[in-house]
Amino acid sequence: MAALPRMMELPELDALVRRALVRAGMAEAHAGHVARGIVACERDGARSHGLLRLPGFVHSLQIGWADGRAEPVCTCETESQLRFDARNGFAQVVLAQARARLVEKARRNGVATLLSGNSHHFAALWPDIEDFAAEGLVAFACVNSKKRMAAWGGGRPVLGTNAMAFAAPRPDGPPLVWDQSSSVLSQGDVLLAAKEGREVAPGIGCDAQGRPTTSPEAILGGGALLPFAGPKGASLAVMVEVLAAALTGGPFGFEDRSPAGGATTSLGGQFLLVVDPGVGGSDFAGRMQALTAALLEAGAERMPGDRRYAARRRALAEGVALDVGPLEMLITLAGG
Amino acid sequence: MAALPRMMELPELDALVRRALVRAGMAEAHAGHVARGIVACERDGARSHGLLRLPGFVHSLQIGWADGRAEPVCTCETESQLRFDARNGFAQVVLAQARARLVEKARRNGVATLLSGNSHHFAALWPDIEDFAAEGLVAFACVNSKKRMAAWGGGRPVLGTNAMAFAAPRPDGPPLVWDQSSSVLSQGDVLLAAKEGREVAPGIGCDAQGRPTTSPEAILGGGALLPFAGPKGASLAVMVEVLAAALTGGPFGFEDRSPAGGATTSLGGQFLLVVDPGVGGSDFAGRMQALTAALLEAGAERMPGDRRYAARRRALAEGVALDVGPLEMLITLAGG
Repeated sequence: MAALPRMMELPELDALVRRALVRAGMAEAHAGHVARGIVACERDGARSHGLLRLPGFVHSLQIGWADGRAEPVCTCETESQLRFDARNGFAQVVLAQARARLVEKARRNGVATLLSGNSHHFAALWPDIEDFAAEGLVAFACVNSKKRMAAWGGGRPVLGTNAMAFAAPRPDGPPLVWDQSSSVLSQGDVLLAAKEGREVAPGIGCDAQGRPTTSPEAILGGGALLPFAGPKGASLAVMVEVLAAALTGGPFGFEDRSPAGGATTSLGGQFLLVVDPGVGGSDFAGRMQALTAALLEAGAERMPGDRRYAARRRALAEGVALDVGPLEMLITLAGG
Repeated sequence: MAALPRMMELPELDALVRRALVRAGMAEAHAGHVARGIVACERDGARSHGLLRLPGFVHSLQIGWADGRAEPVCTCETESQLRFDARNGFAQVVLAQARARLVEKARRNGVATLLSGNSHHFAALWPDIEDFAAEGLVAFACVNSKKRMAAWGGGRPVLGTNAMAFAAPRPDGPPLVWDQSSSVLSQGDVLLAAKEGREVAPGIGCDAQGRPTTSPEAILGGGALLPFAGPKGASLAVMVEVLAAALTGGPFGFEDRSPAGGATTSLGGQFLLVVDPGVGGSDFAGRMQALTAALLEAGAERMPGDRRYAARRRALAEGVALDVGPLEMLITLAGG
């Protein structure tokens, strides 16, 4: 009989994740920022980016691939832009340092951008931006990641499954927030199919010769994931490489030098745009309400984020249910 | 025997398009800005957005749906943002007025945005941003348009086929530029299929009951186009409604009040972001060169824009070939 899942309150989960990161070499102050994203995903039922990612963070720290003690440096500041070199540390640490100044700039000028280079990101992107929307701001973010995806008819991996995320406030509900990768299917889902001996659907990947395949092993073994909507998804992923890597000075997806074997965090960059609708604008809240109402009226099943918010309400009241596997992993990494 | 196409030099084409717009009621100074985009598309072989659109512009002006004499008003200016009310005129006119100030702001602060509300757009988006890249800047633009597309599982039209475009400079070639709608297929292509009695592929649209259909008549007659990549394309199209309409004060796609019958321009808004890579950054040109080389090395067939640039070289040398139909339409609209 399989052991039953254990319910865990969020503060306890947060403390354990922090402890695991600190044990792996991360500075106390930084661990809080990274743990926050992992716990937020677990809380919101977005498990693919929750505890499942913790071993990757820990491994990257332990082997010295990522620097958990690096202090980000602000290399350039203007009225509306902040540039940071994360110095091989984490994007979340940069954001925590830059956040207040970024908001201040957006409030004053209507728009502000944060360019973060040489930063690791291995988490969901929405936790980075949801809070801006909760303060009435509109936010867009993107990160590039290690190469796994082909582009524009090519058959070899060259781009990351580069994620984009967007958040906007709603007066009558939690923020409208979406977060999506540039590939049809995530690497994680292909790994899962391989583990379970399943084929994947056509259009998801190609083999090492660039030929279409439904074999997860062929995709993972020298093949590539494919962008969603063919050239359109590739265009977006290339834009992310330009904004998050070319502009920030972080490595491109194809410049990945991560050690083989074992999941590691992606070293790249992050681009973040914040807009204050109140600077020169009027009734943004009313406009967002009208947009949401129209989408639902036209048959949209839900707003993006709604499923996460429902899971969040449950988790805040009852904690999260951890299966034995993740629980044991967490306790082991946290040092018992 | 069909009459042969006539070759026309670009300055003559430009003069005729301007004359047609002025005859329909557009101010001389504005006509130049709008004609520029139409001629650029014809020159680059992007005919779906070239002369084919001229009757729609003319019709919208003639019936008073769009105001070809409206002077845009700058309603707010900060260190890094410009807000304009186009007052029912054209987005291209706003851009022409705002452009120099926008570039100056981006050069000083690293980033600048232009929010244009109550503006008509009926042209390709790439002509609005390619020139920024030619000056070494990175640019992103989006426009919303009248509702034609369903979203997030809904079966009724609520969003425009909202376009996004991106441009970045390349040191070793013309700018990398893409421009794409949020739908799988454009309304124009569905119209063409209907005209030719063809079915469209599955996944392109739904009928008035929200059911999948391959009938172009069903899609056009109360049905809806579908976003590319399902929820991911819808997410992007919703982001465009927020950036281009909610932020600017322009109407949403679902607030379309355009008169029925006859192609008309879309009244909405435009969001434009310009980034100067030189502010605090280094070797952006070298990075773009590396990105392009890696994409080609991984098998990409071409960079986006390359086909247009090839057509452009031919058109600059030889002019463009106009079939009898478009030629007669142009001459008629220009007053002979």
